[in-house]
Amino acid sequence: MNGNSIGKALVLTCFGESHGRVIGAVLDGCPAGLPISREDIQAEMDKRRPGASPITSRRVEEDVVEILSGVYRGYTTGAPICMIIKNRDVDSKPYEEIKYKPRPGHADYTAYIRYGGFNDYRGGGRFSGRITAAYVMAGAVAKKMLRTINVEVLAHTVQIGRVKLRREVSYDEIRRNVYNNEVRCADPEVAEEMKSEVLEALREGDSVGGVVEGIALNVPAGLGDPIFDSLDSDMAKMLFNIPAVKAVEFGAGFNAASMKGSENNDPYRIINGKVVAEKNDAGGILGGISTGMPIIVRAAFKPTPSISKRQRTVDLNSMENVNIELKGRHDPCIVPRAVPVVEACIALVIADHSLRAGIISRILK
Amino acid sequence: MNGNSIGKALVLTCFGESHGRVIGAVLDGCPAGLPISREDIQAEMDKRRPGASPITSRRVEEDVVEILSGVYRGYTTGAPICMIIKNRDVDSKPYEEIKYKPRPGHADYTAYIRYGGFNDYRGGGRFSGRITAAYVMAGAVAKKMLRTINVEVLAHTVQIGRVKLRREVSYDEIRRNVYNNEVRCADPEVAEEMKSEVLEALREGDSVGGVVEGIALNVPAGLGDPIFDSLDSDMAKMLFNIPAVKAVEFGAGFNAASMKGSENNDPYRIINGKVVAEKNDAGGILGGISTGMPIIVRAAFKPTPSISKRQRTVDLNSMENVNIELKGRHDPCIVPRAVPVVEACIALVIADHSLRAGIISRILK
Amino acid sequence: MNGNSIGKALVLTCFGESHGRVIGAVLDGCPAGLPISREDIQAEMDKRRPGASPITSRRVEEDVVEILSGVYRGYTTGAPICMIIKNRDVDSKPYEEIKYKPRPGHADYTAYIRYGGFNDYRGGGRFSGRITAAYVMAGAVAKKMLRTINVEVLAHTVQIGRVKLRREVSYDEIRRNVYNNEVRCADPEVAEEMKSEVLEALREGDSVGGVVEGIALNVPAGLGDPIFDSLDSDMAKMLFNIPAVKAVEFGAGFNAASMKGSENNDPYRIINGKVVAEKNDAGGILGGISTGMPIIVRAAFKPTPSISKRQRTVDLNSMENVNIELKGRHDPCIVPRAVPVVEACIALVIADHSLRAGIISRILK
Amino acid sequence: MNGNSIGKALVLTCFGESHGRVIGAVLDGCPAGLPISREDIQAEMDKRRPGASPITSRRVEEDVVEILSGVYRGYTTGAPICMIIKNRDVDSKPYEEIKYKPRPGHADYTAYIRYGGFNDYRGGGRFSGRITAAYVMAGAVAKKMLRTINVEVLAHTVQIGRVKLRREVSYDEIRRNVYNNEVRCADPEVAEEMKSEVLEALREGDSVGGVVEGIALNVPAGLGDPIFDSLDSDMAKMLFNIPAVKAVEFGAGFNAASMKGSENNDPYRIINGKVVAEKNDAGGILGGISTGMPIIVRAAFKPTPSISKRQRTVDLNSMENVNIELKGRHDPCIVPRAVPVVEACIALVIADHSLRAGIISRILK
Repeated sequence: MNGNSIGKALVLTCFGESHGRVIGAVLDGCPAGLPISREDIQAEMDKRRPGASPITSRRVEEDVVEILSGVYRGYTTGAPICMIIKNRDVDSKPYEEIKYKPRPGHADYTAYIRYGGFNDYRGGGRFSGRITAAYVMAGAVAKKMLRTINVEVLAHTVQIGRVKLRREVSYDEIRRNVYNNEVRCADPEVAEEMKSEVLEALREGDSVGGVVEGIALNVPAGLGDPIFDSLDSDMAKMLFNIPAVKAVEFGAGFNAASMKGSENNDPYRIINGKVVAEKNDAGGILGGISTGMPIIVRAAFKPTPSISKRQRTVDLNSMENVNIELKGRHDPCIVPRAVPVVEACIALVIADHSLRAGIISRILK
Repeated sequence: MNGNSIGKALVLTCFGESHGRVIGAVLDGCPAGLPISREDIQAEMDKRRPGASPITSRRVEEDVVEILSGVYRGYTTGAPICMIIKNRDVDSKPYEEIKYKPRPGHADYTAYIRYGGFNDYRGGGRFSGRITAAYVMAGAVAKKMLRTINVEVLAHTVQIGRVKLRREVSYDEIRRNVYNNEVRCADPEVAEEMKSEVLEALREGDSVGGVVEGIALNVPAGLGDPIFDSLDSDMAKMLFNIPAVKAVEFGAGFNAASMKGSENNDPYRIINGKVVAEKNDAGGILGGISTGMPIIVRAAFKPTPSISKRQRTVDLNSMENVNIELKGRHDPCIVPRAVPVVEACIALVIADHSLRAGIISRILK
Repeated sequence: MNGNSIGKALVLTCFGESHGRVIGAVLDGCPAGLPISREDIQAEMDKRRPGASPITSRRVEEDVVEILSGVYRGYTTGAPICMIIKNRDVDSKPYEEIKYKPRPGHADYTAYIRYGGFNDYRGGGRFSGRITAAYVMAGAVAKKMLRTINVEVLAHTVQIGRVKLRREVSYDEIRRNVYNNEVRCADPEVAEEMKSEVLEALREGDSVGGVVEGIALNVPAGLGDPIFDSLDSDMAKMLFNIPAVKAVEFGAGFNAASMKGSENNDPYRIINGKVVAEKNDAGGILGGISTGMPIIVRAAFKPTPSISKRQRTVDLNSMENVNIELKGRHDPCIVPRAVPVVEACIALVIADHSLRAGIISRILK
Repeated sequence: MNGNSIGKALVLTCFGESHGRVIGAVLDGCPAGLPISREDIQAEMDKRRPGASPITSRRVEEDVVEILSGVYRGYTTGAPICMIIKNRDVDSKPYEEIKYKPRPGHADYTAYIRYGGFNDYRGGGRFSGRITAAYVMAGAVAKKMLRTINVEVLAHTVQIGRVKLRREVSYDEIRRNVYNNEVRCADPEVAEEMKSEVLEALREGDSVGGVVEGIALNVPAGLGDPIFDSLDSDMAKMLFNIPAVKAVEFGAGFNAASMKGSENNDPYRIINGKVVAEKNDAGGILGGISTGMPIIVRAAFKPTPSISKRQRTVDLNSMENVNIELKGRHDPCIVPRAVPVVEACIALVIADHSLRAGIISRILK
């Protein structure tokens, strides 16, 4: 059974492997008439570029986006939009060792079982973080769609390892700071601490995880198709498709479990003739439907499983216990690169639901 | 756009409202030849019955399951299985007040917007926790399917309000104790504390939330269809469809964010000729595919939004700020009733993926 | 794998068997705010009632429609609409014989293989023409939806056995005459001939087939989502789900194969400021998208496989050649009863696409 | 709403336009472990190449297939397979005229309405017959899958214009002759007549249609998921997605309408210990499920709408009646090129259902 398409009105189909020829996305359902250029997509793609920082993998990924279909004379045509980036600079040799020696924390073993050993294991193949480039390309289109209804999607790092963002940051700080430091944190001071946390792990041949918060502003009330296509369940599903995500929460999230109803409920007020909530512990979603308040969602990322420390594993051929020591380039923390991916995922889900609701219509003019 | 069906090989379609005629489920894709009786379904349904306890709503729900189709002479036929419970003992009067005065924390306001005021608001209508009875009926069939491949699904309360389960409990304790106390906790002592926490909230006219942990044992390695139909993303989507769930995590979950890779990675070992992980911080899923280890998932429930304390809200007709005080029967904590629902959700997702993988085949003999 | 749901924005899920407890439909995606009553549905259901005519089966089907969900105070709520009819007057005894002796032309053998002998074979079970009652209930809702955009769906018998409608009939003749004769033909004279054709077959213990033409008027240009959800492919798929349909054609259909391009192409003209086609060999669909002209589709029905003549078959238990002679009530021609079913199928597909196009919106006011 | 994906277990997503950069297909759900090479796909692609014949368009289409993903070291990996052909030799100038002057019989007008004039109209854009190259690429993979269960798919031209195949041809004649003449007819003599029919139309600046018959051999009994994913309804849907198809029939098809039940029913017999039908008016499908007999389906193609004769149309800008005379290269009959496309469509549907049934499993070894 397949599993490489997602969405109902806006359907994303992905293909490609880490060390194959391309990483690609087909986005189907985008209305005709949306102005879009290669540069629009490239700008989003560049956000996930590791750059020269010591805290990210040394793999040089130029990631030049090509649009293969669905755009004509600068506008979407209503036909499916296929976008690809080509894979370059790939050194597959280190992966021969892991073919039968699954790396702990990676999908090597599960993919081996699921695909009977036929999976392309080079660079993690289909399970590489690199596949999220496809989400980002599609998300760039989704963001342009959302701009037509004034919806803005933000994301920022709120935790790396033991370092947490300790204060509320404004949307403006997020807009201004996130892509101006290597860890994608809205508070420049905390960003420095986060960077140290990563570098310390790197020195130890280890890695760290973290938490990314995504925010969608100006989402109209009424999006979501309960009971099963509720906005939160669709968004959670999409976020769990980012490799390394182990938890997703909305609004007060896990903290809601220890709150009283009288604390957690968000009272309504009429402000300027509109219904608003006084606070937003609901994270902008009630009953699976948007409330009109900002949508707030957090995804927790486990530490990168690729570490250079010696690890215990097995040899699937000889069925013996062995040790492995991984060489090659690995991000000691993938959280910074996940920030634009979280943005993309949120944008895709809200765009899908905006189409379903008819808030974005099938022809844009 | 619709949103009341879920699953790919095993498709659950739900219908019905809290104070309408019935709550119903159509389960499509169940193989022919599965022995099933009304009593099998009823047994699961009875697990979510509030009973005579002071800590649950006083609504008397007999919830007699009827099978309308898809079963003949004690076996599934391969045709869709429709199951219903009829609604009785419904007092819709208290809900007239809330038609235009949305209760904070409930879906009243969002449903009003989404359905233009045409939604059946009585008892929360389609957004009532009562709709999860449909999940439980369908989940009962899924559990029977899973038994044919020896998969067992458990769930237990690990937190209510500020009271947490403070030690590891064995699967046997879960099997033995969970449905023998009112809060569905595997540790009888903690269960008493949890009960006190609920009663205290009740006395204050308030409510509490909590956390339910679900476990699936003996799930074969290799289930899940990445990248978008990964086992965790499907399970998260299903769990977020339970009203009041605000967070979902697998294995180490949010804690993974502050762990090092060397801590979080689960090393593999050969034990009795089989590949197993030494520990299970992954929660039984890597790369969206089951590892063969127990699947561990936790869902956080916010406190019941229905409280008797006075709350601030608005009148959607007059567009004025008002207060409401809710009367009627409400669970001060819905967590205990959610335990069998979590079991059902997990069972449905694993059964779907087992069918997709061909591990459960289309005719059972 | 499941197969009992169809549609994308308007999803129909069906359940029930010929001799089970009910025949049911869940229609999901119908906008909130559509006025609907039990009587609306019943009126469509009554169109497929065999009545007292000698040309139809003697099974007395009162078929009282019950709405179980999704309608409140006379309006759709936006929640899934479950409708059922209960099965009465069922004599299952004659079917014991056929359990292992598949009737030629029926699904007995294929269902036996597909469901491993667990299928409910009584009265054809899930393969009975009776399941189309579910299409009619759902189609009744679809028709009401279409009325809000002025779309009208008609159907009429154009052939029974060797008797064909030999002239063009007007839409008014169809509206006026079809449900005023037993064969659902718009030309009363031809209707008499058709009736004789059926009676002759009946006397011989045999059966006849026929052709039903469906028409949709005032369908706006631009419906259809090529390349795979084209309007014709979706309509064909739906029509082939009516038992006994063996062929479907649009506009000139099979005749187009022997036409020249210059004959078959429909020239455009401006009439009253609107683009219209001079003729309609396309049947209202080009490139899978509606042209704004009437949609014309024809479905060919094979003769009822149930005949009282002796037939050759096999015994699946003893694996020997045997003969069977069927007793019991059978329609010598199911075409008349299929006419409202064709209407329902067309209405469902156009309503689905109207929702997808945003021409019918998610809240009707 | 999208519409460029089809299938449930084997999902085909298509993209690309006639004069865009590529025509592409993503096939998702193909099991891991299927040996596949670029040449396998190319061989099928070459079947639809017009070649040097006077009866086909002069567009030189080399159509070199490239596999972008999903295949590693000669085997499918279980990941989605993306295949493309690049577009070359395209002269888009003649299409500027038709931008606002829709060609009768083409999708120009309906696409203009559907996509608000943003569609890529060059060469018919997304509505060109050229998009069927994507079906053929995907169908080549499906055929290889089917070979593992011994299923063979054939197709042949049975009618062009007024010339029909007048006798039954054997499967061997089809295998031997079809791709050895320009019209893809199994009878070489009739092939000559068909060719004359095409040439006559060509001389007149006109075009002709025809009928293609598809056959699937050795399809196991029991494929199909009624009531809505019946094998015939899925196959009809797929075939109607080939541009120019206006009718589809199975087995006796339209002729069944004038047959008696005693003629049309296929009696069963035990032959060599297996259940077979004495004849096959059902076309290998009963109740939407395969009978084990050959599947026989016919698709009628309308004449190519592109003709050089002067035609009446309208100018969508000025809203005036105008005439057009088309220049450029057009096939006077697309039926020969449709033959491998029909094969591909049939193969895709049967492969999808074979996966659903577990007859082809998710890992091939």
